[in-house]
Amino acid sequence: EAGTTAPAQSGVASWYGPGFHGRRTANGERFNTHALTAAHRSLPFGTQVRVTNKSNGRSVVVRINDRGPFVGGRVIDLSNASARAIGVSGVAKVSLARL
Amino acid sequence: EAGTTAPAQSGVASWYGPGFHGRRTANGERFNTHALTAAHRSLPFGTQVRVTNKSNGRSVVVRINDRGPFVGGRVIDLSNASARAIGVSGVAKVSLARL
Repeated sequence: EAGTTAPAQSGVASWYGPGFHGRRTANGERFNTHALTAAHRSLPFGTQVRVTNKSNGRSVVVRINDRGPFVGGRVIDLSNASARAIGVSGVAKVSLARL
Repeated sequence: EAGTTAPAQSGVASWYGPGFHGRRTANGERFNTHALTAAHRSLPFGTQVRVTNKSNGRSVVVRINDRGPFVGGRVIDLSNASARAIGVSGVAKVSLARL
């Protein structure tokens, strides 16, 4: 993705709520909420990133070991062709079955 | 993730807005909005999934080739330790610099 080669990226940081500790991250590790790690949508796993809080200037270096942040409740993001095939023009309640 | 072994999953489907066509998906393909593909947060790339629209019963089989759906504007999801290190208790505006 083009954004991964830019020197800096700005936006909103969120954090994992309770209940994720011990679950598998996208790279197969056990998530440890006490470790300095984070989820990013595209940076390679293992990348070190300095995260600076714009409101107070504090920063921390984290290691990317997961993918996210994801939208709560949304289970799939369809291509235009896939959406049209089932009559989805905005969002829709769906069920998924792995084949 | 435990959910990937379940026979079915329900929730909300969204679809890629304009502007993604031709960009790289998480598995390195060029995104083709005219193909029957979709993004899922954890299913292996290449998995075939039947997606059924609960409002009209129509279904389509898609191939997972990307990760998502992501939250717009959110750039990183921090562990509790990472969030505390920079004074984030809810969400916060941050800048990221790859090291």
